[in-house]
Amino acid sequence: MRAFRLIKPGEPPAVVEVPTPRPGPGEVLVKVAGVGACHTDVTLMDAEAGFTPPLPFTLGHEVSGWVAELGEGVTGLHVEQPVLVYISWGCGRCIRCASGLDHWCFNGANLAGIGRDGGLADYQLVPDARYVVPLPENLDVFEAAPLADAGLTPYHAIRRSAHKLVSPMSTLVVVGVGGLGHLAVQIARATSAATVVAVDISQDKLEFARKLGAHHAILAGPHAAAAVKEVTAGRGADLVVDFVGSDASGAFCAAAAGSMAEITLIGGAGGSITVDHRSLQRDTSVTRSGMGSIPDLHEVVALAASGAIGVEVEKYPFAEVDAVYDRLRNGQVKGRAVITLD
Amino acid sequence: MRAFRLIKPGEPPAVVEVPTPRPGPGEVLVKVAGVGACHTDVTLMDAEAGFTPPLPFTLGHEVSGWVAELGEGVTGLHVEQPVLVYISWGCGRCIRCASGLDHWCFNGANLAGIGRDGGLADYQLVPDARYVVPLPENLDVFEAAPLADAGLTPYHAIRRSAHKLVSPMSTLVVVGVGGLGHLAVQIARATSAATVVAVDISQDKLEFARKLGAHHAILAGPHAAAAVKEVTAGRGADLVVDFVGSDASGAFCAAAAGSMAEITLIGGAGGSITVDHRSLQRDTSVTRSGMGSIPDLHEVVALAASGAIGVEVEKYPFAEVDAVYDRLRNGQVKGRAVITLD
Amino acid sequence: MRAFRLIKPGEPPAVVEVPTPRPGPGEVLVKVAGVGACHTDVTLMDAEAGFTPPLPFTLGHEVSGWVAELGEGVTGLHVEQPVLVYISWGCGRCIRCASGLDHWCFNGANLAGIGRDGGLADYQLVPDARYVVPLPENLDVFEAAPLADAGLTPYHAIRRSAHKLVSPMSTLVVVGVGGLGHLAVQIARATSAATVVAVDISQDKLEFARKLGAHHAILAGPHAAAAVKEVTAGRGADLVVDFVGSDASGAFCAAAAGSMAEITLIGGAGGSITVDHRSLQRDTSVTRSGMGSIPDLHEVVALAASGAIGVEVEKYPFAEVDAVYDRLRNGQVKGRAVITLD
Amino acid sequence: MRAFRLIKPGEPPAVVEVPTPRPGPGEVLVKVAGVGACHTDVTLMDAEAGFTPPLPFTLGHEVSGWVAELGEGVTGLHVEQPVLVYISWGCGRCIRCASGLDHWCFNGANLAGIGRDGGLADYQLVPDARYVVPLPENLDVFEAAPLADAGLTPYHAIRRSAHKLVSPMSTLVVVGVGGLGHLAVQIARATSAATVVAVDISQDKLEFARKLGAHHAILAGPHAAAAVKEVTAGRGADLVVDFVGSDASGAFCAAAAGSMAEITLIGGAGGSITVDHRSLQRDTSVTRSGMGSIPDLHEVVALAASGAIGVEVEKYPFAEVDAVYDRLRNGQVKGRAVITLD
Repeated sequence: MRAFRLIKPGEPPAVVEVPTPRPGPGEVLVKVAGVGACHTDVTLMDAEAGFTPPLPFTLGHEVSGWVAELGEGVTGLHVEQPVLVYISWGCGRCIRCASGLDHWCFNGANLAGIGRDGGLADYQLVPDARYVVPLPENLDVFEAAPLADAGLTPYHAIRRSAHKLVSPMSTLVVVGVGGLGHLAVQIARATSAATVVAVDISQDKLEFARKLGAHHAILAGPHAAAAVKEVTAGRGADLVVDFVGSDASGAFCAAAAGSMAEITLIGGAGGSITVDHRSLQRDTSVTRSGMGSIPDLHEVVALAASGAIGVEVEKYPFAEVDAVYDRLRNGQVKGRAVITLD
Repeated sequence: MRAFRLIKPGEPPAVVEVPTPRPGPGEVLVKVAGVGACHTDVTLMDAEAGFTPPLPFTLGHEVSGWVAELGEGVTGLHVEQPVLVYISWGCGRCIRCASGLDHWCFNGANLAGIGRDGGLADYQLVPDARYVVPLPENLDVFEAAPLADAGLTPYHAIRRSAHKLVSPMSTLVVVGVGGLGHLAVQIARATSAATVVAVDISQDKLEFARKLGAHHAILAGPHAAAAVKEVTAGRGADLVVDFVGSDASGAFCAAAAGSMAEITLIGGAGGSITVDHRSLQRDTSVTRSGMGSIPDLHEVVALAASGAIGVEVEKYPFAEVDAVYDRLRNGQVKGRAVITLD
Repeated sequence: MRAFRLIKPGEPPAVVEVPTPRPGPGEVLVKVAGVGACHTDVTLMDAEAGFTPPLPFTLGHEVSGWVAELGEGVTGLHVEQPVLVYISWGCGRCIRCASGLDHWCFNGANLAGIGRDGGLADYQLVPDARYVVPLPENLDVFEAAPLADAGLTPYHAIRRSAHKLVSPMSTLVVVGVGGLGHLAVQIARATSAATVVAVDISQDKLEFARKLGAHHAILAGPHAAAAVKEVTAGRGADLVVDFVGSDASGAFCAAAAGSMAEITLIGGAGGSITVDHRSLQRDTSVTRSGMGSIPDLHEVVALAASGAIGVEVEKYPFAEVDAVYDRLRNGQVKGRAVITLD
Repeated sequence: MRAFRLIKPGEPPAVVEVPTPRPGPGEVLVKVAGVGACHTDVTLMDAEAGFTPPLPFTLGHEVSGWVAELGEGVTGLHVEQPVLVYISWGCGRCIRCASGLDHWCFNGANLAGIGRDGGLADYQLVPDARYVVPLPENLDVFEAAPLADAGLTPYHAIRRSAHKLVSPMSTLVVVGVGGLGHLAVQIARATSAATVVAVDISQDKLEFARKLGAHHAILAGPHAAAAVKEVTAGRGADLVVDFVGSDASGAFCAAAAGSMAEITLIGGAGGSITVDHRSLQRDTSVTRSGMGSIPDLHEVVALAASGAIGVEVEKYPFAEVDAVYDRLRNGQVKGRAVITLD
């Protein structure tokens, strides 16, 4: 089968022919439909030798498809069933895995597409049926792929701080209206009565955020924190999620958050947020957030199936995989690009 | 001033002339705008001698108005400011009151309109500025009155179980689409992504519930629990709120709830819900719920001001107060009747 | 191998010879050390024909032992490792199982020893490595068996209400100081600063409760609820766990609980608890509790390993299995009886 | 009456004679018993001109005493009743104050002893009866003073993260075993089954921590984080509370915390903690914590009254107030110094 792989340290990925895997006991083979292209892929491709997980491996960690073959002992799924692949694979036995927290497995989780073979191939082998999440009929299998990360990560960030958004007097700020941020706006609107504020450097993306339901859209820059204070009657935001991750976005987050607030760092632009007695108001915290759990992914799928959220998708055939990542590098993707196999 | 009071045990209430109160230190005098008519009033009026709080007292516990006069030391409010009155008044010092739980005060709370003088009068005296909740300009002062109870009580019931509605896969069932239930439907839609199911004996009220946002509307009766199971893929509901409170509604709640679910009893129709190893699924609980807290009332007001919820109101002048309660007794009120002072 | 089985409806169980099972892919074979004797076993043995799960099956649901053989693909465990068996086996794929809630599996959980083959045999076959919880070296493998149910069930009941015991001003009442209740007293003392009150009909058991750390021990009866009110300054308890489950114990629970309290029903003596506007104070709930989760069992083991809780155990050889259940029927077991294999 | 006041910017505080205040409506006058000496006082005394709240004001924010006189309308307290003073005074009307969060009042809280007149005087005037917390008879009124801050602040830090300590497999690290830290060790032991680890630069303080119940005591320095990993089976701590607040202690906290952990910064040594994708494990957060709430203070008092925690106190007469602060500046105080009025 075809696979888009990182092969040698310091060399660009390539499409190569590899044997089609077969599922062992408990495993599931998935015929791939679509794979979302993520900035993390670019980081891996562009990394210097020694700064990736051990090579070779197949890229692609936002994967949708259909069950192709079930390993011995797997029940409750059927061939041709449309599914998403959950990509963080734990030991399955420790108390974290037994709590549905495979991604923080005490014995170390493996990431498909980021060290283990991912989905940019005709087939992906999944080591446990729990990592296969059924897709309902009313979702387009190709367009659903980004839910597995671009949907899951902001969903997790918002859900873990759900207690901050219970009050209709609460305010959420989404910093960066890109692949993840444009879903964060929708998730917040669908799951709470909070006021949703979008912040971005692009007027185009602010307009997009308004269309998706943001109550306020504020241009990033020196006046942005004051603008958040204004729409919150001086109180500051209750939850600020940073999908950028630069020093500048971090400083904005700290200035925009009120007391008893939460700031969640997701973006990987290389910056940091400082916590001390001057930078934050009282009882405010900063979290380095990670991806969501398997249960979170089930919930993301349910939310998408209800029509409450949708991914803005551009589709490209597998033959154009290199071109897609160039578009991503150049900031030319609005929403999410999906590479389709077939 | 005029006041509609219960005067002697076993006798109907009457409009009488009483002295207009003056606020002492820390107190607030409110000029009354509107008062919602509640079934609890009817229960008090119709109670046999000895089954009410000590008489006499002025009825009316859903009160809106304007600040008329501030007692010594009260700051941060101003005369003519529109407000709601929070009616459960505690000692102000115990750990419950210090936690914003005046209504469960360890020294015993007093209820305005249900023992202490309520708002069916030209003025109401409120013993502490904390019990006065400002109304924003965009809310009609007269129509806002029912928020103080018909809004507050379902809001509290849903908010205290917010953890059950965090998942978009969750389902809430509202039993009884009356004065409180029609707000419960709206509150659930506005604050969560849960599927909302309304149950009532009246097709008219089911239609009303659908208009207010209920995803499903089910006729009460022997097939209702099965219908809930059907819309929840056999799992049962996560939260069932009973605004009726009969034995029949209680049995329905128990049958409609899934495992790890919550049932909340609010209605006072004289029934009960039985908890044993046959009546409920595992880890499911039944709560006798009460009214909400002061912070809850601030949040209800914010939710109404955002436009996310609205009370269906019929307005009547004070001169028709007796007729209003007759309409209520006869089930002729849709939504909530408000008696307006002026 | 030997197995103590229910074979035909309406007939008593018997020790019979059955083939020793072999583990398939993902499964684990456990050589049994000890099995706790539980009232549930007696209920199953004494049930009329038609009131048990389908027969035949091997009894015994509190099982400790050693890994005897690992099925294909099982890693992270080793032969001869001491373990407990978690007995509620789900589908492993649904969102409940993916959340560590296999016991409330949306596809229906199976209970080992209560329908599926349990541990009163030389070996027990466990269908997934997640259901095998390692025992640390400092715990006696035989005496640890009751942790799997007599430890797990009260642990779950207390942990699910942990928010009610966070305050050092809180009070927990344990009703019934038997096999589960004597562990509840210890668990509450070890994990909170709550005041712990034990209630029982036996002075002997009250003395036992005091020895285990109960702050107060109250004789069950007409004055017990008043005694709870007295030690709580009139406020009532915050959490009441009923390990008896009769109508009388239920009425006591309702009377002993304060407002905003929780009552948890575990015992199966055939009674029920009524929820209405007279039976309970405001915002108080009654839960039909079930067993705990796999993560709960890991935590119970950690708590026992720390020395904070201990099971009062009487050991009997497998040859005396019938006599053990007679002792249990006659109320002659203090703490828990463990049947040892080999 | 005598009062120890900051009078002019840039000048040291002095004992001066001021008029004894009288309580207005709703206020309470407290005759002071003891006042804990806190590093915050030293910071205020040593601040350059312009870096304090407006002067003059009386110092002292850990105050115990007896009710001396009740203002009009205050009920439920009596003259000579022993009390603690809660020092963060809000507007009393906003939703924060109505939720028991006066210290994060949306209209700005005032701090007694840090801007408003504190307790280093014969009498302190308290503006609301809710800020007066009764002391039970079995607590020494003089020695109880430090509970108002040195007890309250760590109690709040641990209680707000109580969900991280519910599991008996959890680990709490206390960094700095001084006035607050020595209480943190006791609070954690009394309220949870967590493993408690103390870290300090002084062997003497580590010995003290062991005596107070710490399971492990680790010398601060380059090997301390590895030592925490060792006692947590490589997982890292679940909660790390930093009572030092230097860059070094912050870096240790980040290295000692596991995934899904919480770090809480309390100490004010001028350092900060950096949050980015290298500094912390996934889903771990850093909070700038503040003081506790009124309900928290009620709970601290209850915990002390139960005997579960105790303040290590050195008592000094008011005449030696300057000398006490010199001892504090020089690190000569073990536990807490209390200045006694009389």
